[in-house]
Order: sequence, then structure tokens, then C-alpha cells
Amino acid sequence: MSDFPLAFDPARPDGSNPSAIETLGDRGWPSLDVVYCVPARQGRAVHVKQGQTLTVTNTHGSQVADFWAFSAADPGEYLSMEHMRPNLRKLCPSAGDAMVTNRRRAILTLLSDSSEGVHDTLVASCDIHRYHQLGHQGYHDNCTDNLRMALAAIGVALPQVPCPFNLWMNTPTRAAGEMVWLPPVSRADDAVMFRAEMDLIAVVSACPMDLLPINGADAVPRSLSVSVSAA
Amino acid sequence: MSDFPLAFDPARPDGSNPSAIETLGDRGWPSLDVVYCVPARQGRAVHVKQGQTLTVTNTHGSQVADFWAFSAADPGEYLSMEHMRPNLRKLCPSAGDAMVTNRRRAILTLLSDSSEGVHDTLVASCDIHRYHQLGHQGYHDNCTDNLRMALAAIGVALPQVPCPFNLWMNTPTRAAGEMVWLPPVSRADDAVMFRAEMDLIAVVSACPMDLLPINGADAVPRSLSVSVSAA
Repeated sequence: MSDFPLAFDPARPDGSNPSAIETLGDRGWPSLDVVYCVPARQGRAVHVKQGQTLTVTNTHGSQVADFWAFSAADPGEYLSMEHMRPNLRKLCPSAGDAMVTNRRRAILTLLSDSSEGVHDTLVASCDIHRYHQLGHQGYHDNCTDNLRMALAAIGVALPQVPCPFNLWMNTPTRAAGEMVWLPPVSRADDAVMFRAEMDLIAVVSACPMDLLPINGADAVPRSLSVSVSAA
Repeated sequence: MSDFPLAFDPARPDGSNPSAIETLGDRGWPSLDVVYCVPARQGRAVHVKQGQTLTVTNTHGSQVADFWAFSAADPGEYLSMEHMRPNLRKLCPSAGDAMVTNRRRAILTLLSDSSEGVHDTLVASCDIHRYHQLGHQGYHDNCTDNLRMALAAIGVALPQVPCPFNLWMNTPTRAAGEMVWLPPVSRADDAVMFRAEMDLIAVVSACPMDLLPINGADAVPRSLSVSVSAA
């Protein structure tokens, strides 16, 4: 099969892993204050009601979380990095910042961040083409497919692939605009907490990148955890 | 009417201007080597065949061009800033660089750039919500609607709103990630030339921003020009 069937379907994964069938809580509806695992190399979708808080924890300390949020009422409205940057007039949000959708409405507020605040808003989620370009042959778990599968597993067809908010990904921009790929500076149990500003579906993918050191110098993908709490 | 009908339709403009009916050449098919005007505050779509070159010229010197490119065979495949940045390992392309799609395939090569190479890849195209947030009341021309209308005028329904390549937009990132909104540093007749690496549809919007100085210190939107030449 060609890597490139004629029409790009944003919802169609290029392969499969357990993200396609395993869900968090009751088909993506969490029990409050329960800490759920997002296994290494997989993704999970979670419903968060307006006013609830969502915490993503870097259990092992060096794992990147590709993160997305979609309006539950209309997944065509989503957290958009390219709309958020000009609204904040900076590359990356920090505690207290509203994060907006492609309609420039607040979907999340970043409430707290126990890490040093090194995250990425510039880099597309990895996909099968990325791994093939890096020399991998055959299928490789990837965050784009994890997003597609995690949403499909709770009955949502992904309408487009937004640029993710890459929690703890340390790919800073140097002088003259060059970017570098470095291990995270986060520590075990570092956590980022958001408040939902509308009913939303968040997706967290424990990035399976093992060909570059973004998930730690040992390039071993690890698990993450997520929990939802009452307002 | 609400600014926010329930379902986001990427193809539906929030208002109208002549971009909706006026096309370049024969319904977007250009005569080679003819210089076409993109009027101030409007957008135009142009077909470019693989191997042909496309030149965008900053006729008056201080005008930002919001720029997009879509595969002619499948507009669901498009020039993607968030895929281009990691492939180039830098924020902005320069002469010789391949610019890739959301499938990480080359769609354009940036052949030459007579300006100082100050362009933006980080900022979403302006939309009606942006102008309302800046204090404008009622409809305002905007690049997102110009994209939608320019494609509709040649019979293409926009399947998603990609982050544009903002030619000559001078919104650099300072230390600690802060962004600033400055007038272009380009001069009259500065031009950027691309080679098409697949049959594509390019869209150029002469940005109508008149509330910030991105189109010059006088904040007066002006026209641009485009031309297509043989391989």
C-alpha cells in the first residue's frame, strides 16, 4: 500500500495500536480524582466539563506529551497554537494564560506548571512519514495516529489534525531561527494543570519518538498520567 | 447573527468582498508571465503546475501577503508550517529550502527572495474574531475569509484553515518567547519566487490589517502582484 493514498483523511490512522480500543474511564468519561495512565507510545481521550481541572503529569520526568483539546460540542473548534500565539503575544503559555481555539475563544486556562515551563508550540505531531524520513521501515507508533485512534475509540472522527501543544518538549529556537532537539528539562511528577473553559475533549499522547532524544537522552518512551477534578 | 454558529465550517466566510467572485486569469488558471494584481484587502487563487514558478511581488514594499498552497489533486494536503519547521529545523525557509505539506511531501521550493528574508510562520491569518478583539465593530475584510472566498471563486471548498506563510510579516520572537508586531523591512518590488513541486493551488491575500502596523507604519493595506512562469 502506498504511503499516500489520493485523498488525505484526517481521521484515518496509518496503522494501529491499543489506543484504538482502550479508553480511559467510561468511554473517555473519567471518574473524578482518579489518576489514569496513558501507556508509553499510546494516546487517550478524556472528557472535561467546563470548570473542571485537568492535570497531566510527567510520571517519569522525561516524557513528552502531545496534547490537544477539542470543543465537545463541535470538534471542528479546537485549541490552536497559531491562534494562541498572537493572542498571548508569545510562543508558549504560562500560568494564568488563556489558551484559545481557531475561533479565538478560550478553551483552557493554564492554571499551574510545576516544571520550568519548557514546552513547544511549533512542531507538528510525529506521524508515519516522519519516522520513514528518519530511516525507520514499516509501521511505527506515532502521535498523529494516537490522536486519531484515541478519538475514534470514544466515537469521535477527527475532522483535522491541529498542531499539538507539546508538553515538556525541549526544542528551542536559537538565533537566526534554528531549532534544536533536546531532552526535556522536567523532573518526575512535574505536572501541568488546566481549567476547562468549555466542555471539551482533551487528548494526550505519550510520544513514541525513539529516534531522537526528545523523550530523554536514552530515547526510551515512557507513560504519562492524567486526572480530572471538580471545579 | 451570532459570531459563533454551532458548527465551525472551514469553508464558510463570515462576510464578503470581491474575492468571492473575481478570479485571476481564466477562473484561476493564469496566462504565463502575466503580472496579476491582488487588490488591497482581497485574495486570489492561482493554479500552478508542477515545475512552474510562482512569483509574489510586494508592489508597494510594505504589504504583508498571507500565503497558502494546496495540492490541486487533494486540497486536504496543504503547505503546513508546523510540518515545515521541523523538516527545515528552523522557523522560516530561505532560498533553496523545500517546503512540505501535512504529509511531509515537498509542495514548493523557495527559489529566491530579494528581501531580507523576514517572514512569519507562527501567526494565524486574521479573521473576524481578531478584528472584534481589537475593537472593530461590524464586518472587516480578513485574510481567512479571503482564503475561503478565493478558493470558492474557482470552485474549491476549503477543507481546513492552515496556518499561512506570512510573507514579509515582521513579527519576530524576542528573548523569553515574546512576539512583537512591527512594520515590514521589505522594499517596493521585493519578490519571492517559488517552484511548484506538485500541481497546486496557491492563494495570496493582501492582508487588510489596518489596526496594527504590520502593513507599514501608516497601517494602510495595499495591493500585491503575482505571476506564473514556465519551468
